[in-house]
Amino acid sequence: MTDTSDITIRLARTEDFDVLWPTLRDVIRAGDTYAIDPQLSQDRIRALWMEEPRATYVAEQDGELLGTYYLKTNAQGGGAHVCNCGYITSAAARGRGVARAMCRHSQHEARGLGYLAMQFNCVVETNTRAIALWEDEGFATVGVLPDAFLHPEAGYVPARVMFKWLGQGG
Amino acid sequence: MTDTSDITIRLARTEDFDVLWPTLRDVIRAGDTYAIDPQLSQDRIRALWMEEPRATYVAEQDGELLGTYYLKTNAQGGGAHVCNCGYITSAAARGRGVARAMCRHSQHEARGLGYLAMQFNCVVETNTRAIALWEDEGFATVGVLPDAFLHPEAGYVPARVMFKWLGQGG
Repeated sequence: MTDTSDITIRLARTEDFDVLWPTLRDVIRAGDTYAIDPQLSQDRIRALWMEEPRATYVAEQDGELLGTYYLKTNAQGGGAHVCNCGYITSAAARGRGVARAMCRHSQHEARGLGYLAMQFNCVVETNTRAIALWEDEGFATVGVLPDAFLHPEAGYVPARVMFKWLGQGG
Repeated sequence: MTDTSDITIRLARTEDFDVLWPTLRDVIRAGDTYAIDPQLSQDRIRALWMEEPRATYVAEQDGELLGTYYLKTNAQGGGAHVCNCGYITSAAARGRGVARAMCRHSQHEARGLGYLAMQFNCVVETNTRAIALWEDEGFATVGVLPDAFLHPEAGYVPARVMFKWLGQGG
């Protein structure tokens, strides 16, 4: 069992980006999990992760940053009650429950911000650990988009749309 | 039967916006079909429809603008081979096959631009005419997002994710 009780999750500060950067860079450059252009510059990734979302958080343990996630509105107008999040755990911290801790935190934060549901638009089928975790956290696979993601090694692979109604409380 | 043979579809010009504006305004303000903030200013709607997409088109017949659509990349990175379109027909031109003509045109244009698939992210369940048309054009309902759209009269209603593989040729 992993003890995640001493993981603290807090809003990201501007200066956190420099610490997060190697992790963000490696995950985005790999191009196998996020529908983000792997060639984006550091400044564009900073804007995408730290500035454009409604809020960005970091997971911290003993002063070390283990991961980060963003929370944003998934669609506008009639879809504005649904939010979207993206989570990245540093390579050194994988398998320690950081992603689960961030996912739970994000659901709580989303409810607090007034969102009623959370949607993941493009969960790459090869990202089996993420899929298992989101399912365990109560997200349903609403649909599978055939060949919707070009994986750098596996070629065209399906991507899932996953969704959870957050309902009341928290 | 509707004769759509004399509908011409061409790239929108800057000055078309003023003609399209009443139609765009009415559809977006109604808030019952597009996940776009109904309160957006005219300038924001101009940017959203005319400037931010990869391309914007108008459907024209005898010099009259009957409708418009945009075409853009739906996701980045590994998802960049999937495009997204939005179509709006002027109230006076509904039932004349304009949406179908625009949808067919968009598939051809998308292929020409190198896209391999087209995805609609939020087809509101009450928009039955659109659903029937996209199905008839070969789009599959990949998933139904429960209560994902707040309809101004019907309340929370489902929204569909629809997808079509464009494959080769045109």
